[in-house]
Amino acid sequence: MYQGSASRVTILAHLFGILSLILILVWLLHYQGGLEYDSNDANRVFNVHPFLMFFGFIFMAGEGMMAFNTVEAERKVRKFIHMTFHLIAICLGIVGIKAVFKFHDMMNNSPDVYSLHSWIGISTFTLFCLQWLIGFASFMFPQASVQTRARILPWHVSGGRALLYMAICAAVTGLMEKATFLQLQHNHQTRVINFTGLFILLFGLFVDLSIALARYRF
Amino acid sequence: MYQGSASRVTILAHLFGILSLILILVWLLHYQGGLEYDSNDANRVFNVHPFLMFFGFIFMAGEGMMAFNTVEAERKVRKFIHMTFHLIAICLGIVGIKAVFKFHDMMNNSPDVYSLHSWIGISTFTLFCLQWLIGFASFMFPQASVQTRARILPWHVSGGRALLYMAICAAVTGLMEKATFLQLQHNHQTRVINFTGLFILLFGLFVDLSIALARYRF
Ligand code: HEM
Ligand code: HEM
Repeated sequence: MYQGSASRVTILAHLFGILSLILILVWLLHYQGGLEYDSNDANRVFNVHPFLMFFGFIFMAGEGMMAFNTVEAERKVRKFIHMTFHLIAICLGIVGIKAVFKFHDMMNNSPDVYSLHSWIGISTFTLFCLQWLIGFASFMFPQASVQTRARILPWHVSGGRALLYMAICAAVTGLMEKATFLQLQHNHQTRVINFTGLFILLFGLFVDLSIALARYRF
Repeated sequence: MYQGSASRVTILAHLFGILSLILILVWLLHYQGGLEYDSNDANRVFNVHPFLMFFGFIFMAGEGMMAFNTVEAERKVRKFIHMTFHLIAICLGIVGIKAVFKFHDMMNNSPDVYSLHSWIGISTFTLFCLQWLIGFASFMFPQASVQTRARILPWHVSGGRALLYMAICAAVTGLMEKATFLQLQHNHQTRVINFTGLFILLFGLFVDLSIALARYRF
């Protein structure tokens, strides 16, 4: 069902996702002292946050969005894979968000959810969980009637694409905030962070394009 | 040609655009001492940048994207309006980018284009100008053949939507960087900045939805 430019776009999406993953690990392991949820070093606790928010939440969600059209299997199986990827994204996302709250608790005097990043992040994550619940209740259990499902589908698709968009904004504002805190300006670490951000953005664009091509076949 | 949920979405897009504009002006005029390109006060020069990048570049470009489908006129006229909005966006965008370089020159020792924000910003703006040139040469002058135009159109549309997406990422990272520089944490000004960012994000989402609805009529 997937050919030509559509499959090339999907391959590029995977590629940018994997490049972002490698770069974020280079950043956190090489420049930022590694990541560990149960550490006494507040920075290692913090580092769990960007890693899980990208790899656990955004990457899993993006792959799950594409999987629905690209995996070669019956509709039922594809639906199940799609749902499971998003469930994993939610679970890892919860751990990732818990990590940054734990980091704030370890740093006394650090207020919670004041930044534009945290506002975009919390709205995205809450609406994502809601979208999952509505999707589950409409398409999985208790499955709605054919007409209802057909009516919900376009909203499910455009809602999902909007959430992908919002998640990318959360990620780039998060990177921007951390880089500004670190006051790095021109150096190697800045370049690693900036390329991570650009590749995450490109991952989002290509996932979106892959979904668009699958649905409308330009 | 435009009815029901499609026109409601467009109205919401205008609304979020105007709300963002009001909030960014409240922020710059009330909290940040106003804006002026030819000022000796570096902050007033800087403030020209966010204002023109949102109002001049993003708002004009978004309105131009929607105008193609929503203005009630012949195709030729709509095409002309669409092109002109984007030309204005480019001109005001150039002044807005010049303003921040001027600000960096006034602040000695401030390096150029090191941040993720400036990387996303420069890529977006460059590709936007390229998209305009290709669009002009394909659809306006010298107009390409019907077949060529039909072949280019889907790329023009998806490229435009991707650029809108990138411009929103540039705006939210810019706001995030400035807010982090200002080290505000929980206060009134932070809330104004955060709502500006959220409304700019919503403007982008609703412009995109308006374009999607006009093309595919769910
Ligand atoms: C979609 C992905 C993301 C979501 C949903 C998200 C969500 C959040 C939330 C809700 C907070 C506030 C926690 C608190 O106030 O205690 C936060 C804080 C933070 N996040 Fe993220 N985040 C995401 C990605 C990232 C990434 C990729 C980075 C990159 C470094 C990052 C960096 C930060 C930083 C520096 C803070 C602490 C300062 C603040 O509260 O703004 N985040 N995030
Ligand atoms: C699409 C819109 C935008 C574009 C294309 C853009 C582009 C740029 C570019 C190219 C620079 C680097 C200039 C230099 O290095 O001398 C820059 C700097 C800056 N911009 Fe923007 N900008 C946009 C929107 C915004 C907004 C809405 C804000 C909100 C406050 C903002 C805040 C900043 C700040 C604080 C800097 C200086 C620090 C730095 O170089 O990163 N920008 N912008």
